[in-house]
Amino acid sequence: MNSREIIRKKRDGGTLTREEMEFFLKGYLDGAVADYQMSAFLMAVCFRGMGDEETTVFTDVMLRSGKIVDLSGISGTKVDKHSTGGVGDKVSLILAPTVAACGVPVPMVSGRGLGHTGGTLDKLESIPGFRTDLTLDEYRSVIAETGLVLAGQTSEIAPADKRMYALRDVTATVESVPLIAGSIMSKKLAEGIDALVLDVKTGRGAFMRTEEEAIALARTLIAVGKKFGKRSLGFVTDMNQPLGYAVGNWLEVVECIDCLQGRDVPDLMEVTLVLGGAMVFLGKKAKSIEEGMAMCRERIADGSAWKKFRENIRRQGGDASFVENPGKYPKSKCQLQIKSSSTGDIDSIDALEIGFVSIMLGAGRLAVDDRVDPKAGILFHKKVGDSVSPGDALATLYGDDQTRLEGASRRAQKAFNIATEPSVLPPLIHSMVDERGVHPWRSPV
Amino acid sequence: MNSREIIRKKRDGGTLTREEMEFFLKGYLDGAVADYQMSAFLMAVCFRGMGDEETTVFTDVMLRSGKIVDLSGISGTKVDKHSTGGVGDKVSLILAPTVAACGVPVPMVSGRGLGHTGGTLDKLESIPGFRTDLTLDEYRSVIAETGLVLAGQTSEIAPADKRMYALRDVTATVESVPLIAGSIMSKKLAEGIDALVLDVKTGRGAFMRTEEEAIALARTLIAVGKKFGKRSLGFVTDMNQPLGYAVGNWLEVVECIDCLQGRDVPDLMEVTLVLGGAMVFLGKKAKSIEEGMAMCRERIADGSAWKKFRENIRRQGGDASFVENPGKYPKSKCQLQIKSSSTGDIDSIDALEIGFVSIMLGAGRLAVDDRVDPKAGILFHKKVGDSVSPGDALATLYGDDQTRLEGASRRAQKAFNIATEPSVLPPLIHSMVDERGVHPWRSPV
Repeated sequence: MNSREIIRKKRDGGTLTREEMEFFLKGYLDGAVADYQMSAFLMAVCFRGMGDEETTVFTDVMLRSGKIVDLSGISGTKVDKHSTGGVGDKVSLILAPTVAACGVPVPMVSGRGLGHTGGTLDKLESIPGFRTDLTLDEYRSVIAETGLVLAGQTSEIAPADKRMYALRDVTATVESVPLIAGSIMSKKLAEGIDALVLDVKTGRGAFMRTEEEAIALARTLIAVGKKFGKRSLGFVTDMNQPLGYAVGNWLEVVECIDCLQGRDVPDLMEVTLVLGGAMVFLGKKAKSIEEGMAMCRERIADGSAWKKFRENIRRQGGDASFVENPGKYPKSKCQLQIKSSSTGDIDSIDALEIGFVSIMLGAGRLAVDDRVDPKAGILFHKKVGDSVSPGDALATLYGDDQTRLEGASRRAQKAFNIATEPSVLPPLIHSMVDERGVHPWRSPV
Repeated sequence: MNSREIIRKKRDGGTLTREEMEFFLKGYLDGAVADYQMSAFLMAVCFRGMGDEETTVFTDVMLRSGKIVDLSGISGTKVDKHSTGGVGDKVSLILAPTVAACGVPVPMVSGRGLGHTGGTLDKLESIPGFRTDLTLDEYRSVIAETGLVLAGQTSEIAPADKRMYALRDVTATVESVPLIAGSIMSKKLAEGIDALVLDVKTGRGAFMRTEEEAIALARTLIAVGKKFGKRSLGFVTDMNQPLGYAVGNWLEVVECIDCLQGRDVPDLMEVTLVLGGAMVFLGKKAKSIEEGMAMCRERIADGSAWKKFRENIRRQGGDASFVENPGKYPKSKCQLQIKSSSTGDIDSIDALEIGFVSIMLGAGRLAVDDRVDPKAGILFHKKVGDSVSPGDALATLYGDDQTRLEGASRRAQKAFNIATEPSVLPPLIHSMVDERGVHPWRSPV
């Protein structure tokens, strides 16, 4: 067995055996396989894909490259949610305390924003004092005490994935279903979960542009989860326009605070409740997704989700006074409103463009080590389907640099498409995917 | 412009502009583009290919990474031949002195054997004292004085190709028409040629297994040649059975000596005369390929080709007494004859297997720095189309290690396929390719 022959086999469309996959990946970790061989292999995978069994072995080797958290001492079925990333996707912040308030432990390891998509870690860290860089001991203690933990990936979890992801990023080998699946699942399996809910986003602002790609990824993630004995449910959800009204770290936290206190932001809350309902169902606290959704709604209505959120913030070092009184948070130096210049219905708001606008404002990052401005971002006043007249405010942009704000506002303006004909709202939840296949989803909300 | 976006563009099937190709390749040479990015790019090229213009720029940047020999001070149209490599392919050794004897200067830079195919340099170096590691000054002097030069690639010629070839070898990115074409043409153009004849081999013992692949490569090589103003002619020739009766470095030199002295080895001489005729035609010493072939035949018959060969050997430091009296050459310690066990016609002799047999005997190499035994090899007594009876000698194997010889002989035996029905000889010259397209070739031999 040698590295070149393994690369060649994948290049020619073969299926690697467990022995070959282990030889190659372990060789990469111990230095026998060079970065340039791994990148050639990754590119071949982009073209040839991997079977479910191959993807499982790929995941397994990455998983075993680091520590696997043992949460068996914590009672209950531990359930996490993973989203493939979007613009304005702040679901985790509402979801995690709500599901935990339903009695389902939520161990959640999140990432930072990169490119046009935001990251849960950046949002959490906009709360003064909030720590996401927990040790594995702290991680276990926090979930044991509060029923949820919101942490970043430590260097002990799936280090092979960390190294390979950096390589994929610079070799244009990110967009591949088995590679994405291996990366996600190796981290999720290391967290100590028993079950997993997946939010695979599709559309302009998603990595999976088409529904077919999103379904393919969801099916692979679920198949890999099954091989590891973890029941998983996936939802393909729309990411053509940003989710909710806020894009930008602290602005999104404020929107989550509002929702946890009972405000209904329709698209955001629909996604949150469906995913939350599925988590409560997989966590065996409800007999169906619908019953789980109803429980989540109750826990928000009775204030227990909001209480759980503040409890977790304090436990992870955050200053809860800011979420209790968001008005005391520092403000951006500049703000700028963009207005409609025509009459009609908003037909689309390009989430990808809005993602780049948020980077221009300082709310996102292009490179891994860029700093983000937690205050910066965009607040929408109108969304797809709303009618507008000339002069109506569409959105307000926040940032500390007036010149960049002006550039960003020109780009944001172009992200709105206003049509004279009534717009048709795309369904928000495209479909549900489980081990048996793809099912239409009719939301009971 | 950045490396990742260039890789992504190629991955997604785009055509790189000259600026992008230069940015990427020059970046590779000066270190801005990493090996792992180059290998991902090379793998993407294996799947997506390159257009002729892209391949030309690719070739041009590699060519300009080193020195380009200026042979304009030498009168005449300088013509070289390139073969994509085969088993028993010793054509260059007969061809170069014959064409030079026709008055066409032949500047020839050759390579070493690797894998199952042999290399002209190894054959030449089996002649005691013969030097192929010429400086560029020596290279120019030798061709100026003798009308031909047989040298190896110096580090001054296309260093980018040398570096990239090493990377392709370990990343399974060798088999790609534009990458092969760029590698071949950057070296050939650096030699100082005015025109080029190409022998693109196809079949079991060739890199291009199918005729379609061989034609695709020939067309690309010719298209690139044309963009550089070098007229080229290509021939797709058969490499299913080894060429001639000898495989192994010194054994092949001896077969060439015989042919230069007038022996007719039908398949070897047909390929040699067609390629030689084309070189004399491109070198403007004949009005057609057929006239060039006739001239080559005359130069062999009148002894001038044989004289030119010895003159060149002496000029490059070789001891011509060995070629004048091959009997004084050292002999292998062991030899072993393989015999037919059945009655019938030889239907095929697997050139690929014979290539591996020659490696087992010590005549070839698997790794670039393996040493070769110049004496080792195989002499065939029968070839495809010959009738055999049980006990008839098929071939004799030569080597210094009896155990390895026995293993090799079992493998060699299996390379022969003897059928009871009369065998059909495949055509030796499949087709001719020029700037206008592919043409059938009816040999006038």
